[in-house]
Amino acid sequence: MSTDTNADADDESTSNCGASSSESTTETSSSKCGGSSTTETSSSKCGGSSTTETEASSSGSKCGGSSTGDDSSSSTCGASSSSSSSSSSCGASSSDDDSSNEQEVGATIEDFDAEPGQLIAVGLGPGHPEGMTERAKDALLEADHIVGYTTYIDLIPDEITDEAEDIYDTPMCGEVSRTEESIDRALAGNDVAIVGSGDPNVYALSGLALEILESKGATASMVDFDVVPGVPAAQSCAARLGAPLVNDTVSVSLSDHLVPMPEIESRLHSVASENFTITIYNPWSRKRRENFEKACEILLTHRDPDTPVGIVHGAGREDEQVMITELGELEELGESEIIDMTTTIVVGTEDTYVWDDRMVTPRGYETKYDY
Amino acid sequence: MSTDTNADADDESTSNCGASSSESTTETSSSKCGGSSTTETSSSKCGGSSTTETEASSSGSKCGGSSTGDDSSSSTCGASSSSSSSSSSCGASSSDDDSSNEQEVGATIEDFDAEPGQLIAVGLGPGHPEGMTERAKDALLEADHIVGYTTYIDLIPDEITDEAEDIYDTPMCGEVSRTEESIDRALAGNDVAIVGSGDPNVYALSGLALEILESKGATASMVDFDVVPGVPAAQSCAARLGAPLVNDTVSVSLSDHLVPMPEIESRLHSVASENFTITIYNPWSRKRRENFEKACEILLTHRDPDTPVGIVHGAGREDEQVMITELGELEELGESEIIDMTTTIVVGTEDTYVWDDRMVTPRGYETKYDY
Repeated sequence: MSTDTNADADDESTSNCGASSSESTTETSSSKCGGSSTTETSSSKCGGSSTTETEASSSGSKCGGSSTGDDSSSSTCGASSSSSSSSSSCGASSSDDDSSNEQEVGATIEDFDAEPGQLIAVGLGPGHPEGMTERAKDALLEADHIVGYTTYIDLIPDEITDEAEDIYDTPMCGEVSRTEESIDRALAGNDVAIVGSGDPNVYALSGLALEILESKGATASMVDFDVVPGVPAAQSCAARLGAPLVNDTVSVSLSDHLVPMPEIESRLHSVASENFTITIYNPWSRKRRENFEKACEILLTHRDPDTPVGIVHGAGREDEQVMITELGELEELGESEIIDMTTTIVVGTEDTYVWDDRMVTPRGYETKYDY
Repeated sequence: MSTDTNADADDESTSNCGASSSESTTETSSSKCGGSSTTETSSSKCGGSSTTETEASSSGSKCGGSSTGDDSSSSTCGASSSSSSSSSSCGASSSDDDSSNEQEVGATIEDFDAEPGQLIAVGLGPGHPEGMTERAKDALLEADHIVGYTTYIDLIPDEITDEAEDIYDTPMCGEVSRTEESIDRALAGNDVAIVGSGDPNVYALSGLALEILESKGATASMVDFDVVPGVPAAQSCAARLGAPLVNDTVSVSLSDHLVPMPEIESRLHSVASENFTITIYNPWSRKRRENFEKACEILLTHRDPDTPVGIVHGAGREDEQVMITELGELEELGESEIIDMTTTIVVGTEDTYVWDDRMVTPRGYETKYDY
């Protein structure tokens, strides 16, 4: 979905980070810790020895009370962390240089004395409270701390966030340090939920959490690591489009931040030549115009220009837009409002057709049944 | 998941249908309409002119009251339907002949006088009530009638089914007639929810519903057709395995009931040669041993024998089993209990590794960040 964690995962050092796009303005919404928490906020509450900075105007807030307010912008969680700011690269001065987003992971398992708490990666689904599972709600209610990208934290109903001891949210950039923060808090003895929209396994943070745990010399078992699945963007968008995905299907992200573009192109060629439906995540950003154009070009070398294509922007959100078009028209829509990083695109198969404003990919029953 | 609608969708005329497998014994569980509803039950409650058969011992049941009990085993819903029994091919005498499962769709839009109700395809998620979304629960609570495969109906909490005017469930075979029944009930003026586990777009019934609507001369708009997405099997299983699916991924069903095996083989070749994680649905049934063997063989021509493979049987169910193994060991597991039609298999990429009993597919952060 538009709102899937993929946007988080892939946007780490793209132009969305602190740039003047309309997306970025929504990223710095109010957090529980102070209301006006912005890019530099890094409040930590890990066990008794927390030494953190909270730049938000958090007077009287739940977080302000336990913040000792030193000048280190990294969270140490009782550890001798030397990590950089959890979001220092996401401010207004974000540059095109990937290295400006490099984040180091600091504390290791030796730095923690406490009995570890639990760490759960929770998928919020499409982005409205009704799209969450009961299990996701329960996991968040049971967590001491909830950690996530500000926009996703804002998706959680107040009755859940109000129950948490602490909410730690940072803007779009900073997922590595945010994930580390969640791990440090768990290792320091807190039960922590790290959240994302969609599903934690779809271009999202469950893998990063395990990788960072390992790098710290910890284990997944030590924090009883668990994943609570959610409805992924592909499913939320397909539901809005009708029934485009009922056969074999693939998901491909056009973000080349973490995967080289030649690899993405090769994958697109291989699946476009077979009769898969193709769900495209992270289709467009200012810095990746060429990826989108290239993808459209590859798809058109294997499929007819009149192949149905569904476009869903901001599924489940207030600014949701749904469009069904044809593959031949897709490239020029790249510059339009409906396609950005919060858009998911579903490219039909050669059998997919449009009927009554719905995309239908026949399952094959018509070959066996008389109806 | 094990319990995804794919099992329903693909098992239509496979050996699971009425055979002596352990799966089939669980299919004929009690329905709301009589308690002992079995394969021949076909209770209908469509508008005022319903003429149906209920073979279940439904004295005093909610369904018995409106059943007029004629001898037609098809539901006519106020229409002059000539369709065959909704589940006549699923009894004990199921044969290998696909034609024995042919089901015709009967009534057309001309046969209905009422103002149509709504038809919603609802995904139940992994198979336990906590895995349902709030929206799915609400949709079921608002429906007059709930229609589905008996095993899936049994997954719905009693507090929801108790609110419904009627529950129409049939065993594994009969999805075409069951879907038609749901449509006929909606066209006759009832608000109907048709349910499946997982997501309605994953090898499931949302497409079939649209196809049958069209064949009846109706439209999707006429019944305000909508899809409520659910957590698909791939996500439920990935969550149990750790973080195997965080990059580009594909879903392939090994059922050749509706898709020819050469097409499935070609797809497997194309995606196995690229670095996709591969989620395999419907991996094994007695009649499809060869498909599974062939799939293992194809995967091994492109990936190392030590590629991690996750196997999840009955995810979220009481009989859940989780195993992480290697691709080279997969084929021989085909004959073991853990792999059947309720199993989902996740084949890792060349980067996937096993750490602390979890499958991890690196997202690529390690190339950009120092941790």
